[in-house]
Amino acid sequence: MKKKVFHGVALRALAVICSTIITHQAIADLPQPANDPHAQMHDGGKGGKHQWAPPPKPFEVLPDNKVVFTIRAPQATRVEVQGGWPGGIQGDSRVELTKGEDGTWSTTVGPLASDIWHYQFIVDGVKAMPEFGRKSPQTGLATDEFAVPGANANDFTAQSAARGSVTYTSVPFMDSQKRFTVYTPPGYFQSDARYPVLYLTMGGAHDGSRANEDAFIFNLLDNMIADKRIKPMIVVILDPDAPGGSSLGNSSFHGGGNQTSEKYVEAAQAIVDNVVPFVDKSFRTQADREHRAIGGFSSPGAQGFMAGARNPDLFASIGTFSGGFPTWPGVGMQIESKLHYPRYTGPDLNRVPDMKKLGAYIPQLNANANMKLVFMSVGSDEPLIQTFNLMKSFLDERGVKYHAIVEQGEIHDARNIRVSLRNFLPLLFK
Amino acid sequence: MKKKVFHGVALRALAVICSTIITHQAIADLPQPANDPHAQMHDGGKGGKHQWAPPPKPFEVLPDNKVVFTIRAPQATRVEVQGGWPGGIQGDSRVELTKGEDGTWSTTVGPLASDIWHYQFIVDGVKAMPEFGRKSPQTGLATDEFAVPGANANDFTAQSAARGSVTYTSVPFMDSQKRFTVYTPPGYFQSDARYPVLYLTMGGAHDGSRANEDAFIFNLLDNMIADKRIKPMIVVILDPDAPGGSSLGNSSFHGGGNQTSEKYVEAAQAIVDNVVPFVDKSFRTQADREHRAIGGFSSPGAQGFMAGARNPDLFASIGTFSGGFPTWPGVGMQIESKLHYPRYTGPDLNRVPDMKKLGAYIPQLNANANMKLVFMSVGSDEPLIQTFNLMKSFLDERGVKYHAIVEQGEIHDARNIRVSLRNFLPLLFK
Repeated sequence: MKKKVFHGVALRALAVICSTIITHQAIADLPQPANDPHAQMHDGGKGGKHQWAPPPKPFEVLPDNKVVFTIRAPQATRVEVQGGWPGGIQGDSRVELTKGEDGTWSTTVGPLASDIWHYQFIVDGVKAMPEFGRKSPQTGLATDEFAVPGANANDFTAQSAARGSVTYTSVPFMDSQKRFTVYTPPGYFQSDARYPVLYLTMGGAHDGSRANEDAFIFNLLDNMIADKRIKPMIVVILDPDAPGGSSLGNSSFHGGGNQTSEKYVEAAQAIVDNVVPFVDKSFRTQADREHRAIGGFSSPGAQGFMAGARNPDLFASIGTFSGGFPTWPGVGMQIESKLHYPRYTGPDLNRVPDMKKLGAYIPQLNANANMKLVFMSVGSDEPLIQTFNLMKSFLDERGVKYHAIVEQGEIHDARNIRVSLRNFLPLLFK
Repeated sequence: MKKKVFHGVALRALAVICSTIITHQAIADLPQPANDPHAQMHDGGKGGKHQWAPPPKPFEVLPDNKVVFTIRAPQATRVEVQGGWPGGIQGDSRVELTKGEDGTWSTTVGPLASDIWHYQFIVDGVKAMPEFGRKSPQTGLATDEFAVPGANANDFTAQSAARGSVTYTSVPFMDSQKRFTVYTPPGYFQSDARYPVLYLTMGGAHDGSRANEDAFIFNLLDNMIADKRIKPMIVVILDPDAPGGSSLGNSSFHGGGNQTSEKYVEAAQAIVDNVVPFVDKSFRTQADREHRAIGGFSSPGAQGFMAGARNPDLFASIGTFSGGFPTWPGVGMQIESKLHYPRYTGPDLNRVPDMKKLGAYIPQLNANANMKLVFMSVGSDEPLIQTFNLMKSFLDERGVKYHAIVEQGEIHDARNIRVSLRNFLPLLFK
């Protein structure tokens, strides 16, 4: 039997065909039926002989901060939208859209508070793609998120004309190479100046770039540097480069089920032994402890804290945002929590660190460590506040001064990262 | 009437909650119903008390190069997949999936030829999201594309251990700042070496990063540098940073309907006047004409060609891949083409450049221009081959030597960019 191999005159890249349509004017040859999902990709195109309607805007923020969601789905029988408004994690935030006569579904939610909100359409039970391109240069937001203007949004959307650069680069890490992200402040590539360095152990989300975007770190840095609220600095983001992390070099650096392994401690030390010298060689850093800091969120953040706390000769400033200290190898201890939440707001409700075991990992963090800053934050409404309080007592006993913030109303999510960073950054390199 | 403002204990970022689930082990609090689209996001998670099934792999390339597509959609009534196999642009490549008893739909296509293929699920008429994260560090491919190994795939997937860096940075452009992409070869940030520079005018797809990814430019550069098939070089990608381009500085640099404006010529000159000096100041370039080249695809590529051809004192090498010369202001001329294609394979079937008007834009490109390389390529099966042939005659008349390639079987799409670049790059900086 002869096999037919598909090849030849084929559409091998939908997006570039769209490109063609957008960048050329003579497109009369291409029919664009209005109800063709493919046609929905052509948000910049114009019909030729065959007119097609552009897809509706997926969301619109009204002046009263209500938000209208719209999607074209003539063949669907049920369309919902879910997002950050209350109840999302259980799925009970889903709002059904109403079908109009033209096959377009819509609904209105809110008013929503000032924030950056995520949303997602669900068509007959399956997540649907955003209609438009993936990122707006005006706001720095992806197409599945939008800003309701105000204090909790403006710092995290692109406001400043002077923007830093973002470099994805390979860094030796344990027995492998990892792709890390380096933010350099505006003007870096046009000057000879040296800058302090903050290492951020972030991640856990599906890939590195997304992990960064969710906290809008680059927008925040641009805005705070422009307003002179923080020192211009280099920020090295050590994030996973595979779903769930742990994909390269057999390292347990991020996530997964390996935190109980000794590899966790080795990976923390590899930040010091591999990454720091490499960064000092590759970028114009101020290469001393006073100008070097490390911080991070959740489980990776606790690992970064370990790296810093074990090496106070290299890091004068360390921080952790909702640090997942129960993930340190052998440290997690089951408890029966007295806390109750109406819904899931974060991990480690019934687990805290055994502080004696935790302390054994970081004998270096003591009153003689001469730290410039030890920073801790946690959401008021997440279970890790139990761990946070134990850490405060621990540092008190060690005689280590610290700066601790309970972020009111926050849970274990991306906004928690954002507001924690906004509190942490101005304290650095003073 | 008192308005209720949604806020407080809310899920504001689905992805970071996923992060939490992946990076923490104590997740027993979180139910994960198997048919919850939200649960499908947790590809790295593990169930606690409440087991949930991980989503099926959306595609699997079998040893015989057939591909199995699978998606879970228990509530859907019709599920299709469309992709690059024949007929895609008309939508007639769509293949219906068959529903299994567990609500999982699947089908098999192919065998497919060696290539990088895009695909897209359509659930009840609406594009569905890929199930997994957005990019694989192993292959450098996004989740809506896969490689069938062989000559047309291997050069474009991540093969080399030594990878260059990719920097997104702000560049002054006309009366604004644009975000451009700079590839620096492996070792750039650890050395003092200077490198030749290739400027690529790409884009048109929905955003800049996607435009780059579709041609897998960075993978190709890494692989060809590792194999010593090309010189290590800096590549500056001048791509649009908004859907359809033209979003910043009121510039008509890319796409849209503005090509007939004089702004088109001003923007071409801004590459020379704004971008080149800025790049030479910001990166360690070999800043002379012998080590500076410019090339690009389609309409933006024709604009880059204009920039180079008008400034042979600055660029010794210029190239264009399926150059959209009919978009030069006032140059496009309607014709009745004798070509016939069974389906759409690219723009400008009934339009070619008026070569006298085109020539008037580039008097500098002549026998005395002392060009090291003038490169042109076009797909054998796209209408722009008419323009390509006119350009060859034009260069013959001008006495300008050139290197022209007809890419057999190619149309006006992303693979055309890939194979053109693979032919163009080794000719540079020799």
